[in-house]
Amino acid sequence: MAGQAPAPDSNRVQIFDTTLRDGEQSPGISLNKQEKVEIAHQLARLGVDVIEAGFPITSPGDFEAVEAIAREVEGPVVCGLARTHKADIDSAWNAIRASQRPRIHTFISTSEIHIQHQLQTTHEDVKGQARAAVALAKSLCEDVEFSPMDATRADVDFTAEVCAIAVAEGATVVNIPDTVGYTTPEEYTRYLGRLYELVPGLADVVVSVHCHDDLGLAVANSYAGVLAGARQVECAVNGIGERAGNCSLEEIVMLLRTRTDEHGFDTGVDARELARTSRMVSRLTGYQVQPNKAIVGRNAFAHESGIHQDGVLKERTTYEIMDPTAVGLESNSIVLGKHSGRHALKDALEQLGFKVEGGALNQAFKRFKEVADRKKQVTALDLEAIVSDEMRERTDSYGLGWFEVEAGSRKEPVARVAVRLPSGEESVGESGGDGPVDAIFGAIRAAIETECELRQFTVSAVTEGEDALGEVTVMLRAHGRLASGQGVATDILEASARAYVRALSNALDGAAVREAEGLTEDAARLPATPGP
Amino acid sequence: MAGQAPAPDSNRVQIFDTTLRDGEQSPGISLNKQEKVEIAHQLARLGVDVIEAGFPITSPGDFEAVEAIAREVEGPVVCGLARTHKADIDSAWNAIRASQRPRIHTFISTSEIHIQHQLQTTHEDVKGQARAAVALAKSLCEDVEFSPMDATRADVDFTAEVCAIAVAEGATVVNIPDTVGYTTPEEYTRYLGRLYELVPGLADVVVSVHCHDDLGLAVANSYAGVLAGARQVECAVNGIGERAGNCSLEEIVMLLRTRTDEHGFDTGVDARELARTSRMVSRLTGYQVQPNKAIVGRNAFAHESGIHQDGVLKERTTYEIMDPTAVGLESNSIVLGKHSGRHALKDALEQLGFKVEGGALNQAFKRFKEVADRKKQVTALDLEAIVSDEMRERTDSYGLGWFEVEAGSRKEPVARVAVRLPSGEESVGESGGDGPVDAIFGAIRAAIETECELRQFTVSAVTEGEDALGEVTVMLRAHGRLASGQGVATDILEASARAYVRALSNALDGAAVREAEGLTEDAARLPATPGP
Repeated sequence: MAGQAPAPDSNRVQIFDTTLRDGEQSPGISLNKQEKVEIAHQLARLGVDVIEAGFPITSPGDFEAVEAIAREVEGPVVCGLARTHKADIDSAWNAIRASQRPRIHTFISTSEIHIQHQLQTTHEDVKGQARAAVALAKSLCEDVEFSPMDATRADVDFTAEVCAIAVAEGATVVNIPDTVGYTTPEEYTRYLGRLYELVPGLADVVVSVHCHDDLGLAVANSYAGVLAGARQVECAVNGIGERAGNCSLEEIVMLLRTRTDEHGFDTGVDARELARTSRMVSRLTGYQVQPNKAIVGRNAFAHESGIHQDGVLKERTTYEIMDPTAVGLESNSIVLGKHSGRHALKDALEQLGFKVEGGALNQAFKRFKEVADRKKQVTALDLEAIVSDEMRERTDSYGLGWFEVEAGSRKEPVARVAVRLPSGEESVGESGGDGPVDAIFGAIRAAIETECELRQFTVSAVTEGEDALGEVTVMLRAHGRLASGQGVATDILEASARAYVRALSNALDGAAVREAEGLTEDAARLPATPGP
Repeated sequence: MAGQAPAPDSNRVQIFDTTLRDGEQSPGISLNKQEKVEIAHQLARLGVDVIEAGFPITSPGDFEAVEAIAREVEGPVVCGLARTHKADIDSAWNAIRASQRPRIHTFISTSEIHIQHQLQTTHEDVKGQARAAVALAKSLCEDVEFSPMDATRADVDFTAEVCAIAVAEGATVVNIPDTVGYTTPEEYTRYLGRLYELVPGLADVVVSVHCHDDLGLAVANSYAGVLAGARQVECAVNGIGERAGNCSLEEIVMLLRTRTDEHGFDTGVDARELARTSRMVSRLTGYQVQPNKAIVGRNAFAHESGIHQDGVLKERTTYEIMDPTAVGLESNSIVLGKHSGRHALKDALEQLGFKVEGGALNQAFKRFKEVADRKKQVTALDLEAIVSDEMRERTDSYGLGWFEVEAGSRKEPVARVAVRLPSGEESVGESGGDGPVDAIFGAIRAAIETECELRQFTVSAVTEGEDALGEVTVMLRAHGRLASGQGVATDILEASARAYVRALSNALDGAAVREAEGLTEDAARLPATPGP
């Protein structure tokens, strides 16, 4: 480790969450403003240090969501991403300025391959852009983060020159991203050590790591970064993000906490919120977590095979290095039934961190009653699913009226579906299909009179049991736009119909927004640059 | 790194696949013999060095599957797991002896916590058991692997004593497992270095690593092990296994290959088989792979957001460090339609690695025609799903006859289902429910006249498009046994019904096997010891 790394007593590692920026760039995720704000509130409850709320220049929707988070969410630093362009930095600043702790994060690539093929410019120009961008950001905002994109594939001397410029211009955080998930712990350690030697000023700022998981090393590389001196880790809930995603927030947090004996580091995260945060992000993005995912996977703590159970019963630590309740599993015993009243529901929702009042509470109660009539017990997991589902319902767009379907192995399925149009009118469509879901989707297209292409369809159960709520995610392409929608119901055909109508709404609304508002000329060039 | 590590020119790393042993111990996976053999054939095509085919003492079914793999699968070493008990080692040897390259793998814990709480014995006894077990195994089989279980939490000096005994008794491979996924790359490196110093004989055997992913470090720890001198990595396809699973095979293989510039190591794996192997294991185990899973996740190579696409188009390496075709994605262009004949189907299946002939080909062709009538194009992915689905069909157990259902948002659903009983008779059940799937499941239970508890229900689409095949996984508990079943159809209600009937069959058959054959007294004590 280089001499310039932080003093050994600075053992607090900052958690920089990029679920809403890098995570949200994953294919098919289409979070609306309300959903982003809800996730940001949960991240604040989780106790992350920084929320990268979005990339404001990229679209009016992204701008508004970042602005709403900056205004409403208290506690963490709220960060907006910007290329080195003036328009990006102005947009980021305008979006985050209402926050009590705003941060502008600006970046430019330092790797040969990016400079040559993507930026198509010179090394001198990269240095000039970095200098101007950090200076401009600093004139607007005290807290400025700079990232030399694709640093781990870049010449370390050139990257050091650019980082030194950023530090000289007042950057408070310098992030060294492994943008394509290429480095290894040893190599990253060497690289960071060399940077500390070449840029003495790094000792006075927070060094950050941002690792992608293309070779399965995002957590290990982030950890190596911390051992080499970094005191901020950029990560995302459930490890979502570009391609194989970012460092998984829950894994790096629990690694640091569980192995604090080895290294002495820790974060400020309240780990008991990890399980709920994971479920919320999985539900709202439609990105499922695999059963064998560390920390938050269904089996992460399971010994159901019976083979490990004996050991676990005798002594928990025989096969468990973490206590499931420490990450918020099995800690909640909320159970409501069909006789539970509005007050009990409100209390239960508050325990779960949802503040639901007035009309929203009435609507949630109505929905709760419908579910309680069908399910014997309504648990915390069910309530989370119902509230999240209600959050998706928008009165200004398409909605599901009613549906009916006949199907079987010996006849063609037939479906009739009524869709509520944005005008308030109801339109009924009818269709056959390869199966009842296909028939329902056909009937919805007939009712809305539109075409689209189904890209993905998944169903999972919220809880166990015959009467479990089914949660359906649909991803489709319509009007040149990829959009997703989710739906929840005890009847998976109903959940499928809701999810499909919502995905279509998202696609059609998005297309309408684009046409109505246009895109700034700068944003239109965006595809060239995705961020660290 | 210790002086005793292998010479620098021995840069070939052996891949030891434990999908069928540690992977198969995951909750709810219930692979039958035919499915295990099919996976083993695919592992041979993939080019792994060792297949750990099972833990023969644990059940007659496991024994038979290991025996069939030893007899039929050529190429890799076929390994059977055994505790240090004589009965385990005899059973393992009897199961694998037909292989051209058999290996017995025996293990005993060396950690204080395991010795005290699980084995409830003394250090001397552990040494004695290790000595006797390796000696016995060596008297039967030239190739013997020994694992000190939970080594990374054990005293290194004691573990070294036990390893020295194993080497002295003729072990050819010594595996140092991180059984509970607790270690870090630095700590593991130090631990292995110290072992090399304490046990000079390790220089003459293959040292192996077996890492679990509880803290997200399985790949990084395995990689650290290789850098420290290990030349065998134990891993599982899709990273399945106890709790958060094992080191992911595809990740360690592609890490070693992609970063061979950094370290010079490589494996003998044909990476172009990775994607197909992943799909097969996911399908047969019912364990889905999350979209952001490295190498084999749906998004691992995706830049669909449009944001990275520009860079990728300009120059692939801007954002991709691996070529998707190198891991077998996008490499297959098989497309059949409803006019394709039996010969075309047979050819296509052979290209996919399935040898299907005679009655099985007739059955596959019939099924293909049914699907081709409903789908415009039948792709390689569809064929894999159909063939896998046929592999699950067993004439000697329960089967789906026909079903019909009526459902909608304004009425109670009603389902009637005919189930083919093992006797050959058909039994019809009828039921209502919370939704059409619940009603179908109720009707199946009525037809079979049994009770069970649904634990999990997931649906995913095999390919894109409205006419995609739906793949349903059901996990349930019946007669004290957790069992899963899968079903494939263009109609998800049909797929659900097939999956449910199969899961129930697996549960009822398993219970019947247990009652009929009994378990050896030794196996009945098994729950105390799960393996490395």
